[in-house]
Amino acid sequence: MDLPERWIVGVDIGGTNLVVGLVPARGGNPFGLRTQRTLSAEGPEAVVARVVDMVVGVLADFEAEGGSKGVVDGLGIGCPGPLDRTSGVVVTTPNLGWTRFPVRDRIAEAVDLPAALDNDANCAVLGEWWQGAGKGSRVLVGLTLGTGVGGGIVIDGRIFHGVGDVAGEIGHMTVDLDGRPCKCGNLGCLEAYASGPNIAARAVEGLEFGASSILPDLVEGMLSDVTAETISRAAVQGDAYALSVMRETAEYLGAGIANVMNLLNPDTVVIAGGVTQAGEHLFAPLQEVVRKRAFASAVDRCRIVPAALPGTAGVVGAAAVFKQQDTGGL
Amino acid sequence: MDLPERWIVGVDIGGTNLVVGLVPARGGNPFGLRTQRTLSAEGPEAVVARVVDMVVGVLADFEAEGGSKGVVDGLGIGCPGPLDRTSGVVVTTPNLGWTRFPVRDRIAEAVDLPAALDNDANCAVLGEWWQGAGKGSRVLVGLTLGTGVGGGIVIDGRIFHGVGDVAGEIGHMTVDLDGRPCKCGNLGCLEAYASGPNIAARAVEGLEFGASSILPDLVEGMLSDVTAETISRAAVQGDAYALSVMRETAEYLGAGIANVMNLLNPDTVVIAGGVTQAGEHLFAPLQEVVRKRAFASAVDRCRIVPAALPGTAGVVGAAAVFKQQDTGGL
Repeated sequence: MDLPERWIVGVDIGGTNLVVGLVPARGGNPFGLRTQRTLSAEGPEAVVARVVDMVVGVLADFEAEGGSKGVVDGLGIGCPGPLDRTSGVVVTTPNLGWTRFPVRDRIAEAVDLPAALDNDANCAVLGEWWQGAGKGSRVLVGLTLGTGVGGGIVIDGRIFHGVGDVAGEIGHMTVDLDGRPCKCGNLGCLEAYASGPNIAARAVEGLEFGASSILPDLVEGMLSDVTAETISRAAVQGDAYALSVMRETAEYLGAGIANVMNLLNPDTVVIAGGVTQAGEHLFAPLQEVVRKRAFASAVDRCRIVPAALPGTAGVVGAAAVFKQQDTGGL
Repeated sequence: MDLPERWIVGVDIGGTNLVVGLVPARGGNPFGLRTQRTLSAEGPEAVVARVVDMVVGVLADFEAEGGSKGVVDGLGIGCPGPLDRTSGVVVTTPNLGWTRFPVRDRIAEAVDLPAALDNDANCAVLGEWWQGAGKGSRVLVGLTLGTGVGGGIVIDGRIFHGVGDVAGEIGHMTVDLDGRPCKCGNLGCLEAYASGPNIAARAVEGLEFGASSILPDLVEGMLSDVTAETISRAAVQGDAYALSVMRETAEYLGAGIANVMNLLNPDTVVIAGGVTQAGEHLFAPLQEVVRKRAFASAVDRCRIVPAALPGTAGVVGAAAVFKQQDTGGL
């Protein structure tokens, strides 16, 4: 195969999945992608050991195709935060249950490559800016509706971190002062309505109250198996109840995005996560809510689009984080 | 008097008041400050004519003190938005009732000075960054609780505008999805709770329902005369009802500030407006709400402080906007 000259390993440590791949430093599709469950309850040491095995595996595949580790410049890691980029330490991660763990250096030493660390949601947004739905954007805001609701801000091609690497935590924006309890301990966070599990929980609540829907059939009666993806599928099939859950999701998500538009006036909002499979059944009501809630001049200048790199934005963005640290640009 | 070498005229067109002064280009107290009511209902031409008179008056005072117009580099204008900085045009202003008015060039031509235009709330925040409570801040967010709730973001000493000059509109952030109607047409905006008139309206609602308070005495029975300042005075005097209005204000304002902290991770939040006269009766409950609602690592890195330049931040910041446009820095 015709190999690009330089490569960067991208590592995406998510609340649910680990993804590792080798990303061409000049941009392009990742090579040798592999995924496995995070199983964070095994603890950080066990997860890091598996990440290292995955990296070693990717590099072995690369050598089998004629590549060599000598053309791999380093390794970018995306990991749930809050974290300290300078020391490469994960401070606390509600979604992993780790505290004060030096994830960057553990991985870097084990694979003998220089490494950079950033928040997984930030990496995903930078990945979309570099090679996905956010290409060419000046002010890009990204949301990932996954296990939680992650967010990130990219301004002029750089992740905006704020003064302590917390910036971009859109998921814990209060949109309903006395609303649903969030696992962060607060009430009415966007995440309490729009994360995958919370979209499913809201739908199941209605089903338990007897709402008529094809959803129970789709999960063979096991309501605990309903996910945001199941609801998206039902909505696409025209199920009225699933559509109402989508509209309610759009109501909260739209308020959160409108807040971000009024505050940051972005040109692009990218939304990732399984629920975006609902397509226009989500995006049409979302656009309507945003238009109602945000300044017209902000709405007019901003497109809301689904992510273009589902499954790989984190790996691509983690590699981009390393490249920016290493060379200063992308 | 010992005059600095170069000066800039600052013009602050607010929803309620016009303020004009001459600001030393190297920083320092404004000279010849004058204020009058905006009376926006007279229309933009009439307001501009009075602004021009005020500028001419300030320059005459300056010459009387030995200055000359030759050392005045230009003029900065702060005006409610949305506006278009490039063309110097006010697009629409809910608080003034103007549309598509070329405010910058009208003033510039009348006084024969080059001019720059920015949002009034942005100017106030830049003023606090340059010479007030935000000095040295890397990421500064400012809120003005006035006729409306204005907001601005200053990153590394520059106003952050977004892609269309809308950024910083914190006042119209949804904090309560189905909450109080806001004059923007939306429900549950921060402004619907925390602007001066809305703080007063919430207090008066309770008084009309028979709440016991010294407030009616402070306004000699005219409840329509209750303002946020009256409530602040009553709170400082220990009035339990006024204190409860303050705590409720802190609940909404705190949610808004927590949202901004999670999103932008600032090191400083500056709050301006008459209601800050309540001091710790506002700031103590506010700090408590913010700590409950925002990420600890964001709260730990951020101070919430009252504005240091009440009444002049807008003029100082408008001059700063001109200086940055003229010389590239401050």
